Amino acid sequence: MISTEIQTIVIALGGNALSTPHGDGSVDEQRAAIRQSANEIVKIYKQGWRVVLTHGNGPQIGRLLLQQEHAKGLTPPLPFDICGAMTQGQIGYLLQLGLQEVLHSDGIENSAVTLLTQVVVHPKDPAFQNPTKPVGPFYSEVEANELHQTKKFSMKKMGTGDRPYRRVVPSPKPLKIVEEASIRLLVEAGHLVIACGGGGVPVICEKGRLRGVEAVIDKDLAAERMASMLGAEVLLILTDVERVAIRFGKPDQQDLKRISLSEAKRHMASGEFPAGSMGPKIEAAIRFLESGGKRAVITSLEKAQAALDAQAGTEILP
Amino acid sequence: MISTEIQTIVIALGGNALSTPHGDGSVDEQRAAIRQSANEIVKIYKQGWRVVLTHGNGPQIGRLLLQQEHAKGLTPPLPFDICGAMTQGQIGYLLQLGLQEVLHSDGIENSAVTLLTQVVVHPKDPAFQNPTKPVGPFYSEVEANELHQTKKFSMKKMGTGDRPYRRVVPSPKPLKIVEEASIRLLVEAGHLVIACGGGGVPVICEKGRLRGVEAVIDKDLAAERMASMLGAEVLLILTDVERVAIRFGKPDQQDLKRISLSEAKRHMASGEFPAGSMGPKIEAAIRFLESGGKRAVITSLEKAQAALDAQAGTEILP
Repeated sequence: MISTEIQTIVIALGGNALSTPHGDGSVDEQRAAIRQSANEIVKIYKQGWRVVLTHGNGPQIGRLLLQQEHAKGLTPPLPFDICGAMTQGQIGYLLQLGLQEVLHSDGIENSAVTLLTQVVVHPKDPAFQNPTKPVGPFYSEVEANELHQTKKFSMKKMGTGDRPYRRVVPSPKPLKIVEEASIRLLVEAGHLVIACGGGGVPVICEKGRLRGVEAVIDKDLAAERMASMLGAEVLLILTDVERVAIRFGKPDQQDLKRISLSEAKRHMASGEFPAGSMGPKIEAAIRFLESGGKRAVITSLEKAQAALDAQAGTEILP
Repeated sequence: MISTEIQTIVIALGGNALSTPHGDGSVDEQRAAIRQSANEIVKIYKQGWRVVLTHGNGPQIGRLLLQQEHAKGLTPPLPFDICGAMTQGQIGYLLQLGLQEVLHSDGIENSAVTLLTQVVVHPKDPAFQNPTKPVGPFYSEVEANELHQTKKFSMKKMGTGDRPYRRVVPSPKPLKIVEEASIRLLVEAGHLVIACGGGGVPVICEKGRLRGVEAVIDKDLAAERMASMLGAEVLLILTDVERVAIRFGKPDQQDLKRISLSEAKRHMASGEFPAGSMGPKIEAAIRFLESGGKRAVITSLEKAQAALDAQAGTEILP
């Protein structure tokens, strides 16, 4: 456990913290999005929290896979786990620069660091039998069949037109952060630590040895593992809405300000939260509280500080 | 300074530690090369040294730039500094897996970690006026002119045939490791730390703020900065020959077993060591000894352990 005097918060950044929804993937666009995120995160850090940050990598790894695939006649595409490690470097570096810029203007030097992170998953996780997470570019039926034959990729028809197929990979549950000790060391020393980027590189343990696998770990669930393992006081999940809602999009939609663990589980069980969006965030909150966590908060980047003061967002308590 | 009881060694891995000379860039080829390197490094670690590793990224960043360029009609290529950060993730991850495999079979768990590293260079370093380091693919004259016009890339004719041009970037001297405190923390805690990959991402300090620049820092000179800053006992530079030689390739070639700092400087001044190969290694050794280092060793991967016992390699002493 981290010292009880200084409180630790694990923050999971949503995709919109790193790029604009219909951006071109250029670095200027990413920098602009990151600048705003950095401002909000540093406000929290300056309040005296120990901060660990995690982030998604969907658009970035998508573009990298597209580039690798497009140039495959010139140089062999790298496996998916390695591409994940590359995006940790890419996004960690951009986040670090953004954070350093804000930290510096407050007289705090060189506090943001990025640690490459591997996350252990179970080799028999049922997700491996049912790959669901689409990654990378769209393909024609011929290309899809070829990738399935030659590389054993799972391909799924997900659209219409000439190129309706995408690769899908499993999304197994995170069990353990390999770099746990190092993250703890860095955060206890006061660094603003960026870790588990893109959910971490998924690895399985075979005869005691680690091996990377072609899968994607949900970043909110990875953030939960970090928060639980560090004994963090708060797990803060940032997304594109201010509050979690039930009966979402219906005339009687109800925004949730504060719910208990049992209410969260009940709403989850009754199918209020879709698998691809709010579902994993609520699941992460539930797991955090069930692992001894005291407070999970889901809100937007803009409302993060207000939510920590219980003035905004959705709070989930034991 | 690190505790004087346990000695620290900074090891700079040469390109052949990461891939075979005429390899296809596939991950299998990289893994095979890394497996052998990991064996040698873990032998040193197990002797009780605190180990910090750095490595080059030439072939890897070359392939990444090629992929980015080839797919530029689909998604914008990322700037060179970001590509550098990506290769730190890529190579760090592969090295970590390789090291963990060997460490594990010796009962040492999860000790290898990769820290994303930025290295400060001077904005007025003369290298910025004279870019010399070729990076990425070859281009035709038309393409080279276009890249020069649109992106202000420095292009240099370096070959014959249809595509003789390559981009060249500056290679400024490393001044300071931004993540110094974190590297120290991790190495003092006993981790085998991979840092300054590819020489680190070069950044300049503008009005106190860091900004990435499109340049390459020599990895041996970056390793020297780490070794000096950590107060390391040994800077070990691994390359593809067992010993440094003078009158290299001539009938009276003389391999050097042990030389003094002043001899090294004299040979350097008389042009014994070419800029693109042994030059930066000798320069790194000289800088290390001039910064208070006690022992620099240059040898091959295979002879690393013997060289530490003064049974092989070239030793440079104050």
